[in-house]
Amino acid sequence: MKPLPFSGKTCLALSGGVGGAKLASGLAAILPPEELAIACNTGDDFEHLGLLICPDLDTVMYTLSGRSNAAQGWGLADESWRVIGALGELGGDTWFRLGDLDIATHLYRQNRRREGATLTAITGELCAAYGVRHPVWPMSDQAVRTKVIVPEGPLKGELAFQHYFVREHCEPPVSGFRFEGIESAAPQPRMMELLAGGRLGAVIICPSNPFVSVDPIIRLCGLREQLKAAQVPVIAVSPIVGGRAIKGPAAKMMAELGMPVSARAVAAYYGDLLDGFVIDHADAADAPAIASLGAKVRVTHTVMSGMPARIALARDVLQFAAELAG
Amino acid sequence: MKPLPFSGKTCLALSGGVGGAKLASGLAAILPPEELAIACNTGDDFEHLGLLICPDLDTVMYTLSGRSNAAQGWGLADESWRVIGALGELGGDTWFRLGDLDIATHLYRQNRRREGATLTAITGELCAAYGVRHPVWPMSDQAVRTKVIVPEGPLKGELAFQHYFVREHCEPPVSGFRFEGIESAAPQPRMMELLAGGRLGAVIICPSNPFVSVDPIIRLCGLREQLKAAQVPVIAVSPIVGGRAIKGPAAKMMAELGMPVSARAVAAYYGDLLDGFVIDHADAADAPAIASLGAKVRVTHTVMSGMPARIALARDVLQFAAELAG
Repeated sequence: MKPLPFSGKTCLALSGGVGGAKLASGLAAILPPEELAIACNTGDDFEHLGLLICPDLDTVMYTLSGRSNAAQGWGLADESWRVIGALGELGGDTWFRLGDLDIATHLYRQNRRREGATLTAITGELCAAYGVRHPVWPMSDQAVRTKVIVPEGPLKGELAFQHYFVREHCEPPVSGFRFEGIESAAPQPRMMELLAGGRLGAVIICPSNPFVSVDPIIRLCGLREQLKAAQVPVIAVSPIVGGRAIKGPAAKMMAELGMPVSARAVAAYYGDLLDGFVIDHADAADAPAIASLGAKVRVTHTVMSGMPARIALARDVLQFAAELAG
Repeated sequence: MKPLPFSGKTCLALSGGVGGAKLASGLAAILPPEELAIACNTGDDFEHLGLLICPDLDTVMYTLSGRSNAAQGWGLADESWRVIGALGELGGDTWFRLGDLDIATHLYRQNRRREGATLTAITGELCAAYGVRHPVWPMSDQAVRTKVIVPEGPLKGELAFQHYFVREHCEPPVSGFRFEGIESAAPQPRMMELLAGGRLGAVIICPSNPFVSVDPIIRLCGLREQLKAAQVPVIAVSPIVGGRAIKGPAAKMMAELGMPVSARAVAAYYGDLLDGFVIDHADAADAPAIASLGAKVRVTHTVMSGMPARIALARDVLQFAAELAG
């Protein structure tokens, strides 16, 4: 096996939930904690039942801890549902399925927030408790709340992201998004420090939803400019494979936004932010067209069906970045 | 069996936690919902892990629902401990043992509070969900927080009640109490309405701790005066039997406050508020001395070891009240 590039440097991964967490866990399996940091979308965080729920942060944390529920695709393994079952009997809201072990995470976070701790600090404490050694950062310590703009139908107007995603099963049509609070949210200071310092090796945009997972991060004040100014490769992995999203509503959103549902359209959407774009073999025929947009293209296996596949993709991405840094 | 007195009237029970809940459930077993209302101490409520915990309200509610955990003496039957176990592994506070089913109650309450509902309204909803048909009221919709004054030792100062009661197992010495917020807390409006109207039949002070369960209620603004002005018997059941408290720190507190640990001392403490005082056969010899304080005395079995004993005491108390109303 080839030695890893970027030894002594730190790669910054930008991640949403499930798909991003898979690549992040692949990267974490081959990079030591000082050579990888993961900044997570918090735009889909929400206050629910008086608790702050951070789905993407927790998915990344649970996935990196090895305790995620692989069969279910979210949450923790060995989960139980006593609280939500009892809450349902009381007539409480149960559309967001909080497991008992997961609730412990939220209670811990809520308590520390009441004590005045930042989300960054709390996430660090939770990661330590879950045995996650790599830094996992919220994209900001200030609240950003993604709103889904629904142009028509009974839910016409704005839907809070989790209401759209979980309660409404992504069924309402979408015409755009608004990131409430993004103007006044400071980008994660540790991320900005990493981007500005000399230690940065590469930026990897994980195969997450471009609109609701990656956009809330890169639209933070000054971040896109900082990413473009960084003297390292910025690489994205396409969340669209063969015209479909591996998971989640990315493909449906692209269609509703009037975009072609293709890896190329994702590359075009990220535009001049990218130095490199990683697509699946399924989309190999589009490589020249994607390359014509400006970024270099790497064709590989991007569908991560297990830990070996995650690690293989992580290696490919790092190798690609090393070549681009060349 | 004799017919119940007070038909068509409503008895008001003032209750703390376990002991009070037992008598309340005895009363609820023999009085229809329109003839009994229970006002509960909320002085031992506290915010914990971002949730509002109302131990006395919930104990009364759980007990009346028939779902309380008799073996454990608090909480719900068929309880499990997944959340608190996981929270402990995360390094969170676990000294207050919240069961999974109990947490559902607190999440329901917290969510409704965020929606702006009063504690009275929320308690009504919870009672309906738990199948409790009798009105159970928080003593106030405003926060009153009992502080235990510790005159010496490593915890010298003021302790929040649950910290004293649960975390410190009532071990610190006590020299007094402060009811934070009581000056600005409005007594439960439905209770005041009942006290002022013509429907009131009797007031029953349950065998709860006089200092930390009953005092927070009767020291609410204007309440003691209203109770004395009510043209109905006010009866207390002694929580002290044979020089000991059935449960909780009442006896220890009396000793530390320099009072004799006796039913008589409890009667003296309530003073001219009482028309009648119910003591156990164990204290029968003290009946004349207690009567000399001014209230009539009824000697009966006050230790409620099961539902039949609760009902028997409830009948005795109602009969006593009827005689006093005579």
